[in-house]
Order: sequence, then structure tokens, then C-alpha cells
Amino acid sequence: MELEAAKMIGAGIAALALGGAGVGLGNLFGNYMQGAFRNPEAQSKLKVNPMLAFALIEATGLFGFVIAMIILFG
Amino acid sequence: MELEAAKMIGAGIAALALGGAGVGLGNLFGNYMQGAFRNPEAQSKLKVNPMLAFALIEATGLFGFVIAMIILFG
Amino acid sequence: MELEAAKMIGAGIAALALGGAGVGLGNLFGNYMQGAFRNPEAQSKLKVNPMLAFALIEATGLFGFVIAMIILFG
Amino acid sequence: MELEAAKMIGAGIAALALGGAGVGLGNLFGNYMQGAFRNPEAQSKLKVNPMLAFALIEATGLFGFVIAMIILFG
Amino acid sequence: MELEAAKMIGAGIAALALGGAGVGLGNLFGNYMQGAFRNPEAQSKLKVNPMLAFALIEATGLFGFVIAMIILFG
Repeated sequence: MELEAAKMIGAGIAALALGGAGVGLGNLFGNYMQGAFRNPEAQSKLKVNPMLAFALIEATGLFGFVIAMIILFG
Repeated sequence: MELEAAKMIGAGIAALALGGAGVGLGNLFGNYMQGAFRNPEAQSKLKVNPMLAFALIEATGLFGFVIAMIILFG
Repeated sequence: MELEAAKMIGAGIAALALGGAGVGLGNLFGNYMQGAFRNPEAQSKLKVNPMLAFALIEATGLFGFVIAMIILFG
Repeated sequence: MELEAAKMIGAGIAALALGGAGVGLGNLFGNYMQGAFRNPEAQSKLKVNPMLAFALIEATGLFGFVIAMIILFG
Repeated sequence: MELEAAKMIGAGIAALALGGAGVGLGNLFGNYMQGAFRNPEAQSKLKVNPMLAFALIEATGLFGFVIAMIILFG
């Protein structure tokens, strides 16, 4: 297999990490919704901001995105 | 494997990230539904809008879509 | 591998994104059912219509379908 | 790999989307059952018919089936 | 397959570990949210800090990232 061809396949595989981040984010926000509906007043008492948690999970997907970019153009 | 052939397979693999986003969105909206049925009045009190959460999760899938497009036409 | 052969395999892989959408839709409607049974009167109070949520999740699968079509005929 | 051989593998992979639809349908009907057992009288009040939800989820699997057919005979 | 080509594919596969970390982090924070909403006062009593748990899970993904980097540039 030539180098250019392998880059296409490798980048595609690396992009799959974004799918895992999508599942994780759905789990985060889904459970956040349930909790917020059960106890709306507690939203301001959470010590872990949901947007912080979003950023931390999204980062895993973006690492995969970065690896895909490195493979394609690095 | 030739470059053109590898592009087809790589783009197909990258598209799988959309599947992860689909699972995550289902988790988000499914849990939102349950919470909203349990406490419908709290819908206007949510600090994280479900449509914002949708956009953030969808973005992970669209990153995969973008990588697929880059592989095919980049 | 020849280009025509790779198209067949790539399109098949891209179609898997539809499986993720299927799981997500099941999660959406399954949780909707549970909530609706628990509090049937709240069905008209939901601010996020389940059919809107369906369309948003289905879209992730259709993106994969579109990529499969692009691979096959693009 | 020859074109005929690749068709067999691509169609097989595309069929996996039906597995995702199966998981989703199981989630739908499983949760429907739980809700119906908890509140049997509410069955006639549901605004989203479980058979409609079934059709919408099944459709994701059928898209994968269609792609498999296109790969094999298209 | 040549060595350079194999590096591209190997790095892509290694990046998948980040997807698993994404799912795990979503599970961690999602369940944390639910618990914190149910009993906000207990947040300061938790003996396992959620950020410690985050770091431990993230580390699994970063190991995959490191392996991808070693494959590409090592």
C-alpha cells in the first residue's frame, strides 16, 4: 500500500474517536437533564460545571481529530 | 492499494463518527424526555438548553463528516 | 485494490452510521414511552417535540447515508 | 481484490446497520413494556404510537439494507 | 505494505482509544451530575474527587495518544 493511500485510511480510523466523544457527551448532557429536572434549584450549586465537563470530554474527540489532521497533513 | 481506492474506504470509516453522535443524541433527548415528563414546569428553568446540548454533540459527528469530506475531496 | 472494489467496501462501512442512529432513536422513543406512561397529561407540555428530536437524530444517520451515496456514485 | 469479491464484503458490512436498529428497537419496546405495566390505562393516551416509533427506527436499518442491495445488485 | 504506510494506519487505530476514554468520561460526569442534583450538599463529602476520576480516565486516552505519537514520530 502506498503512503498516500494509507494516510486516507488512517485518518478515517482516527476520526472514529469523535464518535466516542459523541456518545460520552450524550451521556453527560442526558444525565444532566434528568438531574436538573428532578432538582432545578440545585443547578447553581453544582461544583462541576456541565460546560467544563463538556470541554473535558470534547477534548478526547479533538485529540482524535488532531491525530487525523497530523496523519493527513503532518 | 491505489490512492483513489483508499479515499473511498477512509471516508466510509470516518462517517462512522456520525453513528456515535447519533447514539449520544438519543441519550440526550431520551433523558430529556424522561425529565420533562417528570417535572414539566422545570423546562424553562434549565440552564443548559437542550438545543445547545444538541449542537455540541452534533458537532462531534460533523467533525467526522468534515474529515470524510477532506479525505474524499481534500 | 481497484477503485470500483473499494467503493463497495467504503459504502458498506459508511452505512454503519445508520446503526448508531438506530440505537439513538431507540433510546429517544424508549425513554419517551416511559415518561409518557408515567405522566400522560404532560405530553402537550413538552417544549422539545419528540418528532423534532427524531428528525435531529435521524439526520446523523442520513449524513452517513449521504456519504455512502457519494462514495458509490459521487 | 476483485469487484465481485468486494461486493460481498461491502454488503456484509452494510448489513451491520440492521444490528443497530435491532438494539434500538429492543430499547423502544423494552421501555414501552415497563411503562405499560406501570400504568396500563395510559396506553390509549400516548401521542406517539409505539408502532410509529417502531417504523421510524426500523427505517434506519432498512436504509442499511438498501445500501447492501445497491452494493450487491446496483 | 511499506513501513511508512503502516505507520499511518497504526496511528489511526491507536487514536481509537481516545473514543473509549470519551465514553467513559461521559459516563463519569453524567452519573456525577445525577448524584449531585439528588444530594447537592454531599458534594464536599465525596472522598473521590470528580477531577481526580477525570484525570485517571483521561489518562487511558492519553496513553493511546502517546502510542499514536510514538508510531508516527518515534
